[in-house]
Amino acid sequence: MIVILKNSPNKAQLETLISWLQEKGVIVHSITGANQTILGLVGDTAKLDIDLIAALDIVDDVKRVQEPYKNANRKFHPEDTIVKVGNTQIGGGTLSLMAGPCSVESEEQIIEVAKAVKASGATMLRGGAFKPRTSPYAFQGMGADGLELLKLARQETGLPIVSELMDISQIPLFEDVDVIQVGARNMQNFNLLRELGTLRKPVMIKRGLCATYEEWLMSAEYVMAGGNDQVILCERGIRTFETYTRNTLDLAAIPVLKTLTHLPIVIDPSHATGKSALVDPLSCGAVATGADGLIIEVHNNPACALCDGPQSLKPDVFDKLAKKLFSLHGLMKQVED
Amino acid sequence: MIVILKNSPNKAQLETLISWLQEKGVIVHSITGANQTILGLVGDTAKLDIDLIAALDIVDDVKRVQEPYKNANRKFHPEDTIVKVGNTQIGGGTLSLMAGPCSVESEEQIIEVAKAVKASGATMLRGGAFKPRTSPYAFQGMGADGLELLKLARQETGLPIVSELMDISQIPLFEDVDVIQVGARNMQNFNLLRELGTLRKPVMIKRGLCATYEEWLMSAEYVMAGGNDQVILCERGIRTFETYTRNTLDLAAIPVLKTLTHLPIVIDPSHATGKSALVDPLSCGAVATGADGLIIEVHNNPACALCDGPQSLKPDVFDKLAKKLFSLHGLMKQVED
Amino acid sequence: MIVILKNSPNKAQLETLISWLQEKGVIVHSITGANQTILGLVGDTAKLDIDLIAALDIVDDVKRVQEPYKNANRKFHPEDTIVKVGNTQIGGGTLSLMAGPCSVESEEQIIEVAKAVKASGATMLRGGAFKPRTSPYAFQGMGADGLELLKLARQETGLPIVSELMDISQIPLFEDVDVIQVGARNMQNFNLLRELGTLRKPVMIKRGLCATYEEWLMSAEYVMAGGNDQVILCERGIRTFETYTRNTLDLAAIPVLKTLTHLPIVIDPSHATGKSALVDPLSCGAVATGADGLIIEVHNNPACALCDGPQSLKPDVFDKLAKKLFSLHGLMKQVED
Amino acid sequence: MIVILKNSPNKAQLETLISWLQEKGVIVHSITGANQTILGLVGDTAKLDIDLIAALDIVDDVKRVQEPYKNANRKFHPEDTIVKVGNTQIGGGTLSLMAGPCSVESEEQIIEVAKAVKASGATMLRGGAFKPRTSPYAFQGMGADGLELLKLARQETGLPIVSELMDISQIPLFEDVDVIQVGARNMQNFNLLRELGTLRKPVMIKRGLCATYEEWLMSAEYVMAGGNDQVILCERGIRTFETYTRNTLDLAAIPVLKTLTHLPIVIDPSHATGKSALVDPLSCGAVATGADGLIIEVHNNPACALCDGPQSLKPDVFDKLAKKLFSLHGLMKQVED
Repeated sequence: MIVILKNSPNKAQLETLISWLQEKGVIVHSITGANQTILGLVGDTAKLDIDLIAALDIVDDVKRVQEPYKNANRKFHPEDTIVKVGNTQIGGGTLSLMAGPCSVESEEQIIEVAKAVKASGATMLRGGAFKPRTSPYAFQGMGADGLELLKLARQETGLPIVSELMDISQIPLFEDVDVIQVGARNMQNFNLLRELGTLRKPVMIKRGLCATYEEWLMSAEYVMAGGNDQVILCERGIRTFETYTRNTLDLAAIPVLKTLTHLPIVIDPSHATGKSALVDPLSCGAVATGADGLIIEVHNNPACALCDGPQSLKPDVFDKLAKKLFSLHGLMKQVED
Repeated sequence: MIVILKNSPNKAQLETLISWLQEKGVIVHSITGANQTILGLVGDTAKLDIDLIAALDIVDDVKRVQEPYKNANRKFHPEDTIVKVGNTQIGGGTLSLMAGPCSVESEEQIIEVAKAVKASGATMLRGGAFKPRTSPYAFQGMGADGLELLKLARQETGLPIVSELMDISQIPLFEDVDVIQVGARNMQNFNLLRELGTLRKPVMIKRGLCATYEEWLMSAEYVMAGGNDQVILCERGIRTFETYTRNTLDLAAIPVLKTLTHLPIVIDPSHATGKSALVDPLSCGAVATGADGLIIEVHNNPACALCDGPQSLKPDVFDKLAKKLFSLHGLMKQVED
Repeated sequence: MIVILKNSPNKAQLETLISWLQEKGVIVHSITGANQTILGLVGDTAKLDIDLIAALDIVDDVKRVQEPYKNANRKFHPEDTIVKVGNTQIGGGTLSLMAGPCSVESEEQIIEVAKAVKASGATMLRGGAFKPRTSPYAFQGMGADGLELLKLARQETGLPIVSELMDISQIPLFEDVDVIQVGARNMQNFNLLRELGTLRKPVMIKRGLCATYEEWLMSAEYVMAGGNDQVILCERGIRTFETYTRNTLDLAAIPVLKTLTHLPIVIDPSHATGKSALVDPLSCGAVATGADGLIIEVHNNPACALCDGPQSLKPDVFDKLAKKLFSLHGLMKQVED
Repeated sequence: MIVILKNSPNKAQLETLISWLQEKGVIVHSITGANQTILGLVGDTAKLDIDLIAALDIVDDVKRVQEPYKNANRKFHPEDTIVKVGNTQIGGGTLSLMAGPCSVESEEQIIEVAKAVKASGATMLRGGAFKPRTSPYAFQGMGADGLELLKLARQETGLPIVSELMDISQIPLFEDVDVIQVGARNMQNFNLLRELGTLRKPVMIKRGLCATYEEWLMSAEYVMAGGNDQVILCERGIRTFETYTRNTLDLAAIPVLKTLTHLPIVIDPSHATGKSALVDPLSCGAVATGADGLIIEVHNNPACALCDGPQSLKPDVFDKLAKKLFSLHGLMKQVED
């Protein structure tokens, strides 16, 4: 950690600061230039409260040199984490395809979609039972009944299921759900994260709409600090000035996170763009960039002429895409060797 | 609502759409130009699911003409909402000054600060008991004990208290807290908002780091839809590319929200900027722009040479500022008449 | 174009507006609901000044339905534009690889790099002669001498050259440069764009740091309105709150622009990320997403231990990458059929 | 400057780096911790190319400690700069009111507006002759004729004039214009800035749509490095995710820049918000926050029912606002003492 002092700092205050830092077990190097004094701190600086130091009268700025996350940090865990889910896995060189409808709507719907995506090569079934909606007047999902239908679909197809949990009180309902999804708007619901850390079950954390990589990794750290190290990170687009797409999909997150962390990275092109026509090209882009998996909306509702979902693919379109993605993944593995 | 169709839409699909819209009780006007057909929908379009329509094969785009919030909408409630809290109020032409430390740390601290800010003219005492922290390793606040100390300080000074609630499970602890604060990271914790709607107690909703005015008002709508209409909105800076200040304080929010809603608006210059030197000028700016109140961090810890808080004012600085703000507020009322 | 009127608009003003619109040759449809009146305008609304209408006392909002660009619009030019440059082309199903150093530094340097990238399959040589630098004290490039060295390298290798032009006064110097690059900071230098429209030479327009797709296409339109239709668009990252990468590379731009325009799209992963380790994965991502080309920094300076350039690849790394990209491009063409 | 090395850096490379830094006249302090080695550089580090160092194989990150601007830096010029223009000044405790139409349209228009704003207390006349327009098909301003009309209005009223210059070639036309305005889209047109540095005439630089404070100050530095120290900075809103207002006005820029630089700061609430109803409250906010001046659009066109300009005030509204602003400015001076 680097502490940049203001010009001509009060000597007594400086000595107090240095003693205080030394008491915390940190070694302090003082560097004095013509216009500036800098303190270089080495040792276990993770214990220090950066805000507290930055607040001091004599301090101009504090810059962190080490990452504030440990369990999620690749430096301390060089090997890739592989999350095992039923008969499949996320990470470790495989391509996970999580597919299914935005919302679970009926038994018929979820089983039909589950069978279709399974036939196309999907490795997991996704489906929303509890839906975070901007408006209190919009459909909020089928709730616990939706989870039951997902389990039925799992029974029919063997696909493990992933679904979003919105509140601590819902945790018991998710006991038999294979992967718990934390939505973008809950990425910094710290009480929820801490609670999920007490489970021994995979948790997939979506990136917040304006979360930095570091904040996202700190949310993973919350879960891992509780002892649950089965964490998956899911990029789903960030909010920028561009409004043509719903969000801006940040594929650089893939190689950046591969450097910073050992956790697997999944991409959600459906929510990121909000437009079904963009799902195919960006799914290809994500696989070629090195994603461990994709989570894609697939919808099938022939009974309703009004329902294809702005960002959902029909099963036949998904089928073609899935084949393309597996070819691409195969080529990437080959050329990387 | 305006529905913009793709070029040469399928006729059968178009008729299905129009019938479906008419069944929903909406009047459909069709406008056909050389290159484009547009449907103009009038009537109670709030019932329509905009995403569903946008998803149709024949639809290019859908544009909403009316706001999706009702209870929070000034169009339907032209009079300003005034939130009464103890012997004071927020809104209705008064200037609310909520002041106090970032975190409650001890009885001595909170009572000393409370007395100081009361003497300077503060109308409410703020203090954090449950602290949302990015890192699981950082101090998370005193919790329930912190709330008890706030109540002690209220008893000593008569100042109503405002404090942040982080999870539904904490609601019983806040029964005797005057104003419940919802933090920026919880602005779209919809389960929490719905629960707060069942209370009959003021709720102050901070704007999310990248929330639009509309999303923020929809969060207010969640609380109001449950019957709790004592909602206060608090602007605390949005996240932008500029990192010199912690966030970018958006003072345009004041006149914009005064147009869109009848709810009172409070500004938090301390968290918005993260720098104590900016609190004074931006507090003045906020009052002159028309804010109903300010929430300002004030810290007093003479025993600890290391603790002034990067964004906190000392009591004597707050005292000078408060006097300035009341003068300014007086002048603004005079010149507006 | 949709004009949304304020509640109870002044009748005389409304009639004036409608007559004025009709005089402009636009057909006006008026739709009146319980709370709102909307005007639907059809015909050649591109002639109307949207700001002027939005400014009227009786108008609440104006929403454009048609794109404001014509020459660049795929609706009016469904066929892909192919830009021919020397013995190569950009667009039309080929993969363009533009490679070379950030700055031209010496004859030895540029010729060595040119030969290396040619051997690896690059189709064009890039190199900066005039450098836009944030600081007036930083090296501003070799200028005209740099352009001469680029031409020498072209003579040696046969590779067409692309270089950035910063000001109208430099146009004569670029007469013999194959592709003129307009930098991100000049994307809305309208005088420059208009001047480039009078040339008959390919112009590659980089996206501004915070330019929307529409603004970017309007900049292309400036050049094309002058009769120069050889325009290439280059995505180089946008500015967001995330600062770990220099910018956020927006690969969704590829399929979005493929829909909106017929112009070819090139991706610059070097400037977008500012980190050489990210160039490989994001180049693969760009090709799989459908980019027509890439512009990649390659640097070779064995004499100087201090100079590899934070975002530049060494020739051997580029060589490996180029092979991978051509395989990937081959596979993508195959699976798309 | 702080150089953070990668774990276990190559020793030979590290020695090369240290020698090279020492040759540049910089003193190098090496700090070694358990996991990290850091170099602290003191001396005239402004000469060092930060990108070059960051690019080295053994370097993880480089953090600047000193600002890269000198002429614009308050540290080296503690006194406020006062820009004298005709019989008025910008900075030094006065409140400058620059008012006038967005575009000069006719002699009658500009003289009428000039007389009106003069009567209301404006200190300068603003008016656009060359207009930067996103569309090549939109009205681009009256050009040189517009400048002549501005001079006529100056003759009639005595008000100095400020107008936007778009290209180096226009400089001779601005010889008799009092303040040259550089638009937001030209803030990093470095060739233009360098040329304006050779003049001895006030230049007002608008902040780019996504320019950081530092980049903005570096643009001022470009002008000042040429010897022209009459620079005014104008905040006009930055681009964010919020689209209700055209841009987000960043009033924190006022106190931040007052700390970083000695140059005067002017606020443009008209362009920042794009809505005339927001001009009044945000002008008040800007004055209370400490702005040295405001630039406000005022339009008067009774002959044309269609032209009030979405962000322009009518003269009577401006008159009321001006009175309010001078009262407010008076109060602020009083309470600051």
